[in-house]
Amino acid sequence: MTVEELAREIGAEVTGDGKATITSAATLEDAQAGQISFLANPKYAKQIDSTKATAVILAPKIAATAKNVTLLRAADPYFAFMKAVIRLHGHRKHPFAGVHTDAHVDPGASIGENTVIYPGVYVGPRSKIGRDCILYPNVTIYEDCIIGDRVIVHASTVIGADGYGFATHKGEHHKLPQIGNVIIEDDVEIGAGCSIERAALDSTIIGKGTKIDQLVVVGHGSKIGPHCLLVAQTGIAGSVTLGHHVTLAGQTGVSGHLKIGNNVTIGAQSGVISDIDDQATLVGSPAMPVSHARRVYMLFTQLPDIVERIKALEDKIEELGSSSAGDGAEVV
Amino acid sequence: MTVEELAREIGAEVTGDGKATITSAATLEDAQAGQISFLANPKYAKQIDSTKATAVILAPKIAATAKNVTLLRAADPYFAFMKAVIRLHGHRKHPFAGVHTDAHVDPGASIGENTVIYPGVYVGPRSKIGRDCILYPNVTIYEDCIIGDRVIVHASTVIGADGYGFATHKGEHHKLPQIGNVIIEDDVEIGAGCSIERAALDSTIIGKGTKIDQLVVVGHGSKIGPHCLLVAQTGIAGSVTLGHHVTLAGQTGVSGHLKIGNNVTIGAQSGVISDIDDQATLVGSPAMPVSHARRVYMLFTQLPDIVERIKALEDKIEELGSSSAGDGAEVV
Amino acid sequence: MTVEELAREIGAEVTGDGKATITSAATLEDAQAGQISFLANPKYAKQIDSTKATAVILAPKIAATAKNVTLLRAADPYFAFMKAVIRLHGHRKHPFAGVHTDAHVDPGASIGENTVIYPGVYVGPRSKIGRDCILYPNVTIYEDCIIGDRVIVHASTVIGADGYGFATHKGEHHKLPQIGNVIIEDDVEIGAGCSIERAALDSTIIGKGTKIDQLVVVGHGSKIGPHCLLVAQTGIAGSVTLGHHVTLAGQTGVSGHLKIGNNVTIGAQSGVISDIDDQATLVGSPAMPVSHARRVYMLFTQLPDIVERIKALEDKIEELGSSSAGDGAEVV
Repeated sequence: MTVEELAREIGAEVTGDGKATITSAATLEDAQAGQISFLANPKYAKQIDSTKATAVILAPKIAATAKNVTLLRAADPYFAFMKAVIRLHGHRKHPFAGVHTDAHVDPGASIGENTVIYPGVYVGPRSKIGRDCILYPNVTIYEDCIIGDRVIVHASTVIGADGYGFATHKGEHHKLPQIGNVIIEDDVEIGAGCSIERAALDSTIIGKGTKIDQLVVVGHGSKIGPHCLLVAQTGIAGSVTLGHHVTLAGQTGVSGHLKIGNNVTIGAQSGVISDIDDQATLVGSPAMPVSHARRVYMLFTQLPDIVERIKALEDKIEELGSSSAGDGAEVV
Repeated sequence: MTVEELAREIGAEVTGDGKATITSAATLEDAQAGQISFLANPKYAKQIDSTKATAVILAPKIAATAKNVTLLRAADPYFAFMKAVIRLHGHRKHPFAGVHTDAHVDPGASIGENTVIYPGVYVGPRSKIGRDCILYPNVTIYEDCIIGDRVIVHASTVIGADGYGFATHKGEHHKLPQIGNVIIEDDVEIGAGCSIERAALDSTIIGKGTKIDQLVVVGHGSKIGPHCLLVAQTGIAGSVTLGHHVTLAGQTGVSGHLKIGNNVTIGAQSGVISDIDDQATLVGSPAMPVSHARRVYMLFTQLPDIVERIKALEDKIEELGSSSAGDGAEVV
Repeated sequence: MTVEELAREIGAEVTGDGKATITSAATLEDAQAGQISFLANPKYAKQIDSTKATAVILAPKIAATAKNVTLLRAADPYFAFMKAVIRLHGHRKHPFAGVHTDAHVDPGASIGENTVIYPGVYVGPRSKIGRDCILYPNVTIYEDCIIGDRVIVHASTVIGADGYGFATHKGEHHKLPQIGNVIIEDDVEIGAGCSIERAALDSTIIGKGTKIDQLVVVGHGSKIGPHCLLVAQTGIAGSVTLGHHVTLAGQTGVSGHLKIGNNVTIGAQSGVISDIDDQATLVGSPAMPVSHARRVYMLFTQLPDIVERIKALEDKIEELGSSSAGDGAEVV
């Protein structure tokens, strides 16, 4: 298709040759003639001069001149680029349809229309998988779980394993049967190697449109709101509540029974140990409001200098003390 | 069954209507008539007024009056509730018995009586699995491992993968064959997505009754004592020794070759870099005794204030220095 | 074989009885007659007196006398021991050859000679696996990935799952099709439970000879150089570049789009948030040069003392201020 046609479909404005043909997408570095790329970060704007891409999608405000490349200006360039990639490449074509014969779906489970289940997947008794879902190889869904429509679960992820619930009595840990389940709402995507624990009594919930990265743990009975982003290796303990549009960056930990509001963002490697209000942005272990945390961590790395300042003060006071004592003696 | 009958079985004292019928268990929030719930935390005591549960198990000292609900007082209410859930619901009923035909058990492996092996499980040559065990879907047990009785291993967990042992020579990393194994003692439960590495030469050991949460790594040759709790995403390096009743909270890391005593508790996200005596409670990275750590982390978050205090001291000393110098001049 | 014969093969010098027979390897603690062990750390040198091993490999400079044990001195004792273990035990013997019938290899995938593929493995369309590779049970290789020769991938690991790429538009996260792939070069080993994400557009690359531990995440489009060591539970975000011989210790996190040079070493639990030059050794969150970091973390644990010093200074200045003011009054 031509750049013009593509621009029209993705809602971008063309500067340069709109008649050029585009067949696929690539990075600025790798792109060749016939390919479209995109520029998100103004600091890489120079790459537009050297790219061999035929067209580049970028934000309206990034300064760049179209010499050998056609520019497609879009208010949200990453979203426009996404639409271009879908238009040019589409989503993954699966090598088979429906439930693969090498998957094991319990006869009491129900699988929606057009759902693709790869080899090695296990779906337990009474679990319901919606329509247009994809369960990649070796995913395990324990019994009684409910998965909505258009849910994607990547390989080796486990949904509904028993929550970590033990009653310790006389030095031994006794298992509390985990009779709850997991509910995954529509349009959720879960990366590879995650574990979403089933609730002890009620339901662990992953809200509509939430996207979970690789190797994330969600504890038993936690309720993750809609449109959240849980980045790789994040761990959420049990009975935590997250509002909508919460972002937890990589390797974050959240203690049990906490309530995190809406539109909250937590930085990487943070440790959340108390409730968080709506709209807050925190980082650090323990998690602190971001502007405070930035100052704390800067000072943390300057601790040797800070202690030098204290040492200097101690020396000066020692000096002042003796000279002041000397003065006093003279006065007396 | 009636509340009275249940109370007798779980060892609780009834206040209120003991003749009411109980059929299942639920949370205070979700419970309906005919259900039993429990209250662990006094700060949620108000929920007893609003719950629709027929009965609630709680500790003797929590103030609560039985209006519409029958109270079951138990010294250890969580343990009593566990017994109630087991009595009312039982543990998971598996959809098949023995080794599922979609599992792959090496002909040279041995599987104990009444052990349930789900689809997608692999058990390697010469590995021995005890009786009454459960291996959930897609678990992998490498060769020569020994699993005791009543052991539960959740989906996608790997036992006996090679320890991370390489001899670096002239810039290349050469694999040391990992000829040891893993021994899992009786009554251990291991969550989903864990990796318990095999030892290079001897055995990695998980002691009797130890419970491991999701996505935990235990390194090659480490010996975990009995009745430990390793919470989600904890990582233990190689050749570590843990005593009995050690708790490592979530996302904790333990460096290699360390010795951690008995009854030790380590807080979440801690980094353990030295040996730890019996009975200690530590937290932080690096891990510090908990009372010290609390003060350290409080001061850490107050670093901007601390530096303000230093700045104020510097200003005052500057002032004192010049006024003191002035005084001196006057005296002279 | 005799100790002498073994010593000749592994390049060690014998002190003591070279005619003794060696049949296998063990730890110093466990070894019995006929076994060889090794001593890496001089602080365990005393164990040589008590070991029942017939022979012990150790470094030339460790003081030890051969009483009941034959000593094999080698410049690189761990490398020599590795050669001894390979000579005596060899690498794992697989219980079958080639692709196991319980594995699922897409007809469009290509598998090299002598490669062993365990039950439960999935290899997607057009993926190429080299020769002499081992894919352990329940490994998933998505489509279009390229795996070199002599690559080892441990159980439950996932290669080529979609990178975590979403365009957020009007509060919803839209999936960018991940049309790139993963390239694993020759002689790489990847532990159990890892996820190596496929690139959005180009390739995620794991360089030749790099060894990855358990539960590691490598983000989409990252390029890991040759001969790196990524220790357990490390997480590398997207579009990161690592040079050669980079070591990331356990539970380290690396933010997106960073460039880490050659021969860089990062300590455990570190958080890397900026580019790192060649040869650097860093530790901490945020990662700092190691000597600075050691001082920072020491002072961090001493924060209560530091604040005591500030308090003492404040008291002294208060005193000095009033006595100095008093002096002034007297003078006047």
